[in-house]
Parts: sequence; C-alpha cells; structure tokens
Amino acid sequence: MDLDWTDIAAKAQTKLINSIPAEWRIPHDKLPPDEQLDVTGFPRQCGLLTDAELKITESFATEIVGAVAAGEWTAEEVTRAFCKRAAIAHQVTKCLTVVMFDEAIAHAKKLDEHFTRTGKTIGPLHGLPVSLKDNFNIPGKPSSVGFCSWALEPTMHESTIVGMLRDLGAVAYVKTNVPTAMMIAESVNNCYGRTVNPRNRALTSGGSSGGESALIAMCGSPLGVGTDIGGSLRIPAACTGIFTIRPSYGRFPHFDARSGLAGQEAIGSVHGPMARSVADLRLWAENVANAGPWLKDPKCIELPWKQVELKSKPKIAVLWDNGMVTPTPPVSRALRNVVEVLKSKGYEIVNWSAEGHKEASDLLAKFFLADGGKSVRKILEPTGEPFRPEMKAYEEAKELGVYDLWQLQIQRTNLCKRYLDRWAACKGLDAILGPTTPYAAPKNGDFKSVSYTGVFNILDYSSVSFPTGIIADQELDVYPSDFKAHGETDEETRKDYDAAAVHGIPVSLQLTGRRLQEEKMLALTEKIVTDLA
Amino acid sequence: MDLDWTDIAAKAQTKLINSIPAEWRIPHDKLPPDEQLDVTGFPRQCGLLTDAELKITESFATEIVGAVAAGEWTAEEVTRAFCKRAAIAHQVTKCLTVVMFDEAIAHAKKLDEHFTRTGKTIGPLHGLPVSLKDNFNIPGKPSSVGFCSWALEPTMHESTIVGMLRDLGAVAYVKTNVPTAMMIAESVNNCYGRTVNPRNRALTSGGSSGGESALIAMCGSPLGVGTDIGGSLRIPAACTGIFTIRPSYGRFPHFDARSGLAGQEAIGSVHGPMARSVADLRLWAENVANAGPWLKDPKCIELPWKQVELKSKPKIAVLWDNGMVTPTPPVSRALRNVVEVLKSKGYEIVNWSAEGHKEASDLLAKFFLADGGKSVRKILEPTGEPFRPEMKAYEEAKELGVYDLWQLQIQRTNLCKRYLDRWAACKGLDAILGPTTPYAAPKNGDFKSVSYTGVFNILDYSSVSFPTGIIADQELDVYPSDFKAHGETDEETRKDYDAAAVHGIPVSLQLTGRRLQEEKMLALTEKIVTDLA
Repeated sequence: MDLDWTDIAAKAQTKLINSIPAEWRIPHDKLPPDEQLDVTGFPRQCGLLTDAELKITESFATEIVGAVAAGEWTAEEVTRAFCKRAAIAHQVTKCLTVVMFDEAIAHAKKLDEHFTRTGKTIGPLHGLPVSLKDNFNIPGKPSSVGFCSWALEPTMHESTIVGMLRDLGAVAYVKTNVPTAMMIAESVNNCYGRTVNPRNRALTSGGSSGGESALIAMCGSPLGVGTDIGGSLRIPAACTGIFTIRPSYGRFPHFDARSGLAGQEAIGSVHGPMARSVADLRLWAENVANAGPWLKDPKCIELPWKQVELKSKPKIAVLWDNGMVTPTPPVSRALRNVVEVLKSKGYEIVNWSAEGHKEASDLLAKFFLADGGKSVRKILEPTGEPFRPEMKAYEEAKELGVYDLWQLQIQRTNLCKRYLDRWAACKGLDAILGPTTPYAAPKNGDFKSVSYTGVFNILDYSSVSFPTGIIADQELDVYPSDFKAHGETDEETRKDYDAAAVHGIPVSLQLTGRRLQEEKMLALTEKIVTDLA
Repeated sequence: MDLDWTDIAAKAQTKLINSIPAEWRIPHDKLPPDEQLDVTGFPRQCGLLTDAELKITESFATEIVGAVAAGEWTAEEVTRAFCKRAAIAHQVTKCLTVVMFDEAIAHAKKLDEHFTRTGKTIGPLHGLPVSLKDNFNIPGKPSSVGFCSWALEPTMHESTIVGMLRDLGAVAYVKTNVPTAMMIAESVNNCYGRTVNPRNRALTSGGSSGGESALIAMCGSPLGVGTDIGGSLRIPAACTGIFTIRPSYGRFPHFDARSGLAGQEAIGSVHGPMARSVADLRLWAENVANAGPWLKDPKCIELPWKQVELKSKPKIAVLWDNGMVTPTPPVSRALRNVVEVLKSKGYEIVNWSAEGHKEASDLLAKFFLADGGKSVRKILEPTGEPFRPEMKAYEEAKELGVYDLWQLQIQRTNLCKRYLDRWAACKGLDAILGPTTPYAAPKNGDFKSVSYTGVFNILDYSSVSFPTGIIADQELDVYPSDFKAHGETDEETRKDYDAAAVHGIPVSLQLTGRRLQEEKMLALTEKIVTDLA
C-alpha cells in the first residue's frame, strides 16, 4: 500500500542527491560550515567550476542566448555549466527537487547539432537553461508541490509552458523547491525540507518560488519560471534580491501546472519569470507572449508583446505603509531613498492610501480556505503526512458552500471596481511603488504577512519586484523610538526584526501597474533602476 | 411589510402601462385580435406613426447616427419616433419593463442643443436610442430581472455600460423584459408575464434577452443591449431573425449589471449588442471597445477594436447535429443550403464533430445550480413568489461545497483545452457554423434545449447568431421518415415541431470563433451574409 510519508521523504531526498553526478557531490568537510551564512561565494571557492563555467554562469540570460547564437558558446557547455552550478547551489541551500542533467545535456547536444548543421538557432531561447518551479509538469518526473504523496509519482502530462519553452530553444534541467501546496511564504515542506537564502542561510529565500530564488541568486540558473497566487514570485525575488514580474492572469500559459488548490479560480494563479535583470525578464516575457500561448492554453488572451513608450516624467503613487504591517526599517529607508531619487529626476510623486488593502488581504485568505482545506487534506492523507504548522489555517478551515463563495466573489469584484476608479481618479497614474514585503528578508520561520503582495493578486494587477540597490544596514536601519504598531502582526514583526541578521541584504520594492500592463511595468522598472544607478 | 408577489406584479404592470403616454395607448378594440399571430405590420397599420417616424424607425442604427450627425434628423425626433414605436410594440408583444420616454426626450433635446451650438456630435452614437435589457441598472429605475421582489425598487447604481453609452451619445429610453433570474430560454416571469414573438405570437421571442429581440424585430429599437450566459443573446436573436454577437468575457463592460446568480463566475455572463444588421452590431462593438472599458470595469481587457482581414476562402467547420437534439427541419435545411452556397463560393468546408458538447452542456447546468438555487430562493422569498415551473431544477437543486465546485472547474478547463487543441489541429480553421438553436422558433413554452449555444459559453468563444435569409416552409420542412431521436429531449422536440406554426419564420444559424475574436466574427458574418444574398 501507500508508503508512510517519512519513508517517502527519505527516498525522495536520497533519489535527489543520487541524481547529482558523484563528481559534483561535495564531501561534507568541503561544504561551508553550518555557521557560514553567506554562501553566494561558494561556487567560486569550491573549485568545481572552471573559469569558463564561472563566466557562463555569471552571465545574464540575454548575454547567453547572444553568445550561443553567435557560436561563441555551445548549448552543451552552457547547460553543463549551469547543471554543475545548480548542483553546488543545491548542496548549500536545498533549492532543488528534480535534477534532469542527463536529459538536459542530451537536449543541448541536439540543439548544437541543429546549429552546426543549419547555422541557425531553433528559437530565441536556443541553448538557454531554464529552471522550473516544482509544479510545472514534465512527463516522467514528479511534481511533488511539497507533498510526500506526489514526490515519487512521475507525472503523465506536460505543462503548456514547458513545451513552449522547449520550442523556443530553452533547456529544462532542474525543478526547484516549494512549500507544501505552495501556500506558505517560505519554501519548506515535509518532503524536501527547507530552502534557505544563499545570502544568509539563517534567512528565508521566500516562497513559494523560493527554490527558484535561491538557485538564481546563486547563479545556478540564468532564468527561472515561478508562480504567484499571493506573492509567490515577488516574495522570494525580494528576499534574495532578484527581479520578477507577476503578470496578470491570462497573459502567459498556465495550463496543467500542478496546484495544491486545483480548480480554485477566485484568484488566478499565474506564472512568470525570475532573473537577475529586467532585460532577462523581458527576453522570456516577450518571446512567450509572441509564441501565441492563446493557441495552446484556453485561458490565455490573444495579446502579442507590445512596444511601449514611457512618459519622460512618470507619475508614481507611493504606498508607504499598508496599515497592517509597517515595513521594517531597511524597507522604509529604501522606499524613502528611491522616492527622493525619483523626485530629483523629475518624476511626479503622489501618496497612495492603503484603502481596500485590508479587505483584499482578508478576501485572499477566505478564498484560499474556501474548500475547508479539503484539497490539501486529500493529498496529505494517503501517506499520513501531517499538516505543517504554517498551514494550521488550512487544517482548521471550514468549507464554504457555493452560495457563500459567490458572495465573496461579488465583494472582490466591487473592491476591484473601487480600486480601478481610484486609479482613474489619480489622473495619469503610471504605477504604484511600495514594499514587496515588510522585510529585507526575515529569518527562517518568521515570514508573517503577504499583505503587500496579495492585494495585487486580488486586483490581478501586473506587478514587479526589483532590488533597489540599497542594502540593509544595521547602523541605519532601526525602528523609530516612537514606533506604534498597527496591531499584533506588526508588533511581532518589530520583535522579530534583527538588524544585525539582515545587515548586507539587498532591499527590494514592488512596482505595480493596472491589469495586463506587463510591457509598461518592465519598461518602467528598467527606467527606475537606471535612474537609481 | 413586504407586499405579496401578486400585488407587486399587478402594481408593476399598471405602473408600466401608465408610463406610456395616453395618446400612445391603443384602445383594446384597435389592437390586433389575439388570434392575429403576426403583428410586425401593426406599427404601420395602427396610424400612430407618421411617415417620417416610420422611415426613422425602419432605418438601421448606422443610418440614424449618420442622419443625426448630418443634421438631417434631430435626436429628439428620432427618440420620439422610437418611444412611440416601442410603446406600440409593447402593447402587442409585452416586451418592456421600464419606460423612460420623458427622460429620453429631454436627453435628446440636450443633445440637439449641443449639436446646434457646436455643430458637433458628442460622440459616435449621438442621438441613437438604445434599448437595454432589464438587468442594466439605471439609478431611480427598477431592475426586476423578472422577480417581483425587485420590480418596484429603484436601483441606486448605474451599470458601467449605461454610462459609457451615454458618453458615446446614445439615448436610453426603455428596458426590456426577461425571464425570472434570466435563467429560462423564453422571456416569461411572474411579474411582467410573457413576451411573445411578433412574427408569430404563438411562438416565443426566446430568452433571456427576449424583450429586446421582440422590440427590435418590431423596429421599436434600432439597437439593444442584452446578456448571454447560456445563449441569452443568441437564442432570442435566432427566434426573431435578428443579429447578435455573444462576445468573450472581458471584451465589453459588464460591471454592476444585475444578475439572478450574482457572484457566479465559473461561466462569465457577458453582454452584447442586438440589431438588424452586422454593421449595426459593429457600430456598437467598435465604439464601446474603443472607449476604453478597461478603465471602468475591472474585468475588461485592454483590447481596442482591431481591423481584420479575412481570407478570400475562409475555412468553416460545420456542426450538423450536436448529438443531443437534432435540429428541426427548417434549421437542417438552412444549414444545408448555406453550406452549399459557401462551397460554391469557394469556402473550404469541413465537418465538425460534437465532441465535448454533451459534457459542456452538463457542466453548464451544474454551474448554474451549484448554489442549490439559494440565490434565486432568497430573491423569491420576501414576497412569497413561487418558483416558476421552468425553474424546477433550481427549486430542487442541492448546494455544492466549494471543493466540488473546484473539481467542476478543473473539468471545465480541461474540456476547454481539448477543444482548443482540436481547433488548432483543424489547421487554418476560421469558424464553426451550426444551428443557434434546434428551432426556427418554438411555440411558447416549448423551448427545450440550450445545448447549441451553451457549449460556447463554457468555452467562452465569440459567437454570432445571424438570419440566413432562409424562411421556414411547411412543405419543405418535414422530419425524414426514418428519423431516429438521440434521446428523450430530441423525441419531444420532434413531437413539438409544428411545420405550419413556424411557416414563414426566418431561420438563423450560429457562427463561432475562438475567444476574443469579435472583430473577425462580425467580418466573417458580413461576408457570409453578402455571399448568401
């Protein structure tokens, strides 16, 4: 019969580590000691990577596809370099769930053969290794989504995006860790354990796309695909100082990506790219949008990528505080500094109130729990896997009837309408700038509020998280002496805050546009990043 | 306390008839006798309309806006003519629920003043009377949606489309009848009674937008706005021989339109135009899409109207029979004839199987009933109004839990994916051509199956119903002697069929494109109609 969940977890972990070639497995005494928190330098120090491999893996995705298309690098050497570096990243952060190095290298060789034979690439992502969040299905590989029940079961179908990326020339080589059901803001589960932040292993890499964020921050992937239903792209990107965009629903194909809350549609789960530059996000977004996802995914909208022109003086509304959780000091400082720079560059800056944000946060939780935790329970039960403590709300939730769900949906649509009217009333508004999360990055286990990201899932707005270039500093970043908490979570956040722990961590912010403004949000982020530099 | 539903119904009907100016009320002995079935000639015969008014009301919307913009007609005379003709239409078909003649004429005068003063129209629909289905909210007017509870209660808010049409220059002057909760395929309810088909009053004008279809077929409106969640635009259009398009969800603003199943989102309710020509549909669709509905309705997609170019030889797949209900003889003959003509014009014609249509129909019903009829019951209860017999399924339904709804949503998305793949596999397919309903128009009370329309609500495809120019003929249109029914509903449909009753009724067909192909479907319908002429 069904194995016990602990047996499965042990098997899955063994299988994972054994799928890393022996020569890339680092003896325990050669690994950084547990007390070494920052492991981002380890790939350079460990001696496994050649200079050429270091150069390849520290390049941007846009540079990689250029070099492969120019015949300077082969797809095989690029893929091998990232396989190696991903193996290293995993051994210090536990970021992977599935390793597909052999298949990836074989795939890369075929791409090289095509290139040699024809002198042409097969598509704009030819030879680019792309990492995938665990919930994207690849036939023959499991998609555990953090559940023991699924960790040893190969999936049968292929997620639409997987096939599209292959057609564009990309090489899938790893899948990355997530929290149980992808419904925790840190990447921890009973099967593969916890992914940690490579910049400080005492901190979380965020969730639910926190395997991706850790891997990319380690340069173990040039470009990854994650998902977002309450902040799952933006939170891990912010925790690790990389870029992402949470697109609006229907922009990119999401068909047959596995979910812990399958069939839940009141808030659309979306996926998007994660990378170390805006240009890399655009490389992915533009090519996926232009490959006609609406012909493959019934939920996709026929919207080819558009060229956008920005105003020379964009109008930005600043959300300083959402009235639920005060941003911790590094985030508040980053926001102040960024706003000062934008003002000095002539941007029109206005304040933005958090009207509706509390209601949106409450609705988000209600939608997630609307089935009374039944979906999650049905996946846990066969192996006796317990609910994780972070998912207590799912364990205790009561199922709603459809009538009550419809009432919540009415409330949500009305909220969206009021928000849109407020946007329109702020004539010429281009974007809202605010925190991605209250944290630079919290300690493992301390992530308490998705309220800054979740509101934009309720609204289905296009939303970028980007590193500001500002670094948390224990001298500068202290709570004001007259700090007054908004409530319990805010007070806990203040107590959890440890200026010394986050010292040196890059601080990210969130830039949000209306629905389906992916082109504009990437362009505006790029402009802001340039203006901040 | 609350009035009894019968009192309300009586009051609402009295109020309605009293809101028609006395001089436009036709004495009982001057009305066509009950046994006169075709009343489309009555507006010409009754003597109330001047020649100028007859000319105005028998013009197309595109002609009217042209004449008003050229200063040939005033908005006031146009509006007055349609008010009068709508009053006449109502007295022979019971098509109206709310009359706003005074407001409309006052509004038209203001438009004329503006035009006189500036020499300019205020927008592309300047001076065009537009009729609205009962569920569009106009502050101060009730939106009964066929419920007695709501029939005397003025609404507070304005539906987004109402304000947008006014901004475009249109004049709202009547609201039109619907069935209870808009969930019956004929327009009958306990409050305002039954709207009948003006071409044959023994037949239904369809539903749920059957007040609109009767009014437009009487030339009592040049252009109307209806809604569609299972066929509610296409069915009444087909029953009365007019044109409509069921757009995909998010193309046109639907915010704050009243619903009998508020908050239900598994199948998006949409609204669209109804008129006597494709050009008139486009007049509405193009101008609404280009007025930026995405800035006013949070569910609207930023998709300005596109120019489309059709292939010279479009590829059309023909759905001859959906395997549930065989089209009645006039519809089968119309389909055969149209296909022959298209073939002769060089169209590429292929057959289309009904794969998935049964599953789609079953899903449609499950989604509608998912709240166990609670929404409808809660509206009926305060006045003691009984469920209508047509809504027995709602009365008897059991509420689902959210988990089960999620499972149905998964099933629906998978069905949509298979359908899209089938579409893609039929290389170069432009549209599916098939019946809109099994009927030319059934007798009042005999509408039995929405299966031809409902599948495209499940798929969210853009779908036109258009009159083919073919007229039901009792000599030609007989069931084959070897007819074999698909099942009980099909057998009943055959028994209900009365060749003499439908003799002379125009037969419509349905032309369907993928999601959000409104431009293409209108252009293709126009081409087909031209090729058929």
